[in-house]
Amino acid sequence: MRFTHETLPQRVVFAPDDAVRAIRAETERLGAERVMVVVTASSSALAAALTGGLPVVHVHDEVVRHVPVEVAERAREAAAKCRADVLLSIGGGSATGLAKAVALTTGLPVVAVPTTYAGSEATNVWGLTRGAAKTTGVDPGVLPRAVVYDASLLRTLPVELSVASGLNALAHAVDAMWGPYADPIDLALAEEAIRGLRRGLPAVKADPAGPAGHERTLYGAYLAAVAFASAGSGPHHKICHVLGGMFDLPHASTHAVVLPHVLALQAPHFPEAERRIASALTAPTATGGLAALYTRLDAPTALRDCGMPEEGIAGAVGPVLAALPTNAPALTRDSLTALLRAAWAGEPPR
Amino acid sequence: MRFTHETLPQRVVFAPDDAVRAIRAETERLGAERVMVVVTASSSALAAALTGGLPVVHVHDEVVRHVPVEVAERAREAAAKCRADVLLSIGGGSATGLAKAVALTTGLPVVAVPTTYAGSEATNVWGLTRGAAKTTGVDPGVLPRAVVYDASLLRTLPVELSVASGLNALAHAVDAMWGPYADPIDLALAEEAIRGLRRGLPAVKADPAGPAGHERTLYGAYLAAVAFASAGSGPHHKICHVLGGMFDLPHASTHAVVLPHVLALQAPHFPEAERRIASALTAPTATGGLAALYTRLDAPTALRDCGMPEEGIAGAVGPVLAALPTNAPALTRDSLTALLRAAWAGEPPR
Repeated sequence: MRFTHETLPQRVVFAPDDAVRAIRAETERLGAERVMVVVTASSSALAAALTGGLPVVHVHDEVVRHVPVEVAERAREAAAKCRADVLLSIGGGSATGLAKAVALTTGLPVVAVPTTYAGSEATNVWGLTRGAAKTTGVDPGVLPRAVVYDASLLRTLPVELSVASGLNALAHAVDAMWGPYADPIDLALAEEAIRGLRRGLPAVKADPAGPAGHERTLYGAYLAAVAFASAGSGPHHKICHVLGGMFDLPHASTHAVVLPHVLALQAPHFPEAERRIASALTAPTATGGLAALYTRLDAPTALRDCGMPEEGIAGAVGPVLAALPTNAPALTRDSLTALLRAAWAGEPPR
Repeated sequence: MRFTHETLPQRVVFAPDDAVRAIRAETERLGAERVMVVVTASSSALAAALTGGLPVVHVHDEVVRHVPVEVAERAREAAAKCRADVLLSIGGGSATGLAKAVALTTGLPVVAVPTTYAGSEATNVWGLTRGAAKTTGVDPGVLPRAVVYDASLLRTLPVELSVASGLNALAHAVDAMWGPYADPIDLALAEEAIRGLRRGLPAVKADPAGPAGHERTLYGAYLAAVAFASAGSGPHHKICHVLGGMFDLPHASTHAVVLPHVLALQAPHFPEAERRIASALTAPTATGGLAALYTRLDAPTALRDCGMPEEGIAGAVGPVLAALPTNAPALTRDSLTALLRAAWAGEPPR
């Protein structure tokens, strides 16, 4: 019991079927008189429907994955030109990420309205890419001041995307258990997150257009991101980051595939995490509980289905080992090679 | 799943046997050049030992229960006169409360070093008394910016006081489950709090001078206060507030006595709370788990032992009913009268 935990200030509003009212209330609390909306182009009709009655001065819909610096620059210029006093992001991780990039240099407060389970809205981490190089950093000013979760906004998300995004959220919670700054409060939040995802995701799978599953999954995804932001990246995220960068793999499904393999290696070395994950999954063991959940969700299991070439395995081992944090006692050259082979082929974790 | 949760910003440092270093680090983070120490007179030697090397400009040791306004005024004048830039409170709830009263009008940041399980350090609530009337309020400026918990500071607390203070903390967690603003995140934090207290308090009882029990109990007491600050006062706290005010009862043991009786009335109406409390107490039922814990702790069970006169029962019923929040479906004139009779006599809850 020797740790420092820093709790970040944020209002979070769970407002099923009620985003319009909640967005208005949260922007008014911030004294918004000139709102700049940041939204993925494909969601611009949604943005219009959600912001009726707000003092919107500009809708910025140039949102690009990984936030290229030139895209961020154009958004910052737009914010200056329209003299925005509040940024309202509507969309997945890329829209939130762009709003955070603008907040980083302008100091403008952000209200985030997520439409996936990405979780970026609950962290003080920003990311920018220049060419192929991604830079990330931490700044208290990029943490959205308020988050509005309306489960009805996720009802049109294709079920495969919901499952992959939800398992990406699950990876935040699991990897938080042994992140470099993991503390008992992070573990408790991560356990509650897994509990929410375990209840929510099967309900989404069973009834993708119903609100109940999305509500619980959003709740779990939010707490997973809170825990992850505090605990920092564990080995799972280092592996996925290297693979994603080397082979341009789809983010969420890569995380979904790799997670059970990392859990199988890590859990024996982290008994408190093992106990909490198993309890949250209502299973005798963490790995057994995760396997059962994956079966129910018909989750992705093979990196080859994500587009990774088999011959890439050998070349990925070195960069992953170089990137690994210290809390990964069982990850050696041999175990990592075996892990990548199994994950590539879609074999069960060892 | 329709709620708003506001997370308050705070650094919390668990530093067993290491308060001196942690206090220095936390005051330095705040840029402290002129520290005013607020400490109970009986702890002034402790304060001197903990603040060696700090730029202390004044040690203020007039600390009085319930923070009388004239005491607060003198502390504020002292802070102005010594031109303090950081307030460092060392002590129980009264010392923390006085520092918060100074912060309320001066805006000075507070670093809190608790020596009991009072929990005030984790809330944005301030309290002042003028004569017999207590005023409380909420202000973001009174929330301590950092809390330093050093379990070794509690090793000299008499075991009866540790138990009563720890059960007062338990009452924060239990009453948060159905407080007027209780939300799922509060319930999760409260459950984790109860888990910590259930593990910690028996260890304190078995080995009052050992650090392990105090560490876990501090952890539980902290999260209990965080949950309680968010959820607001439930019926338990309304009852104890009225009784304490009418009969000048000792704070912590009054809470300890009343809690099982309120739990017995409330639990059947709050199944999620019942499930979480039982789980945290590793018992089939919440009431059974609490009874077993009380037996292990040899906890106080009768208000008559706290100094409440039997003839006071009838007169207390009306004021309690007038003060009750809405989330107390089973608290009627009859059930409350029966509750107070049983709690007065030390009978088991019904």
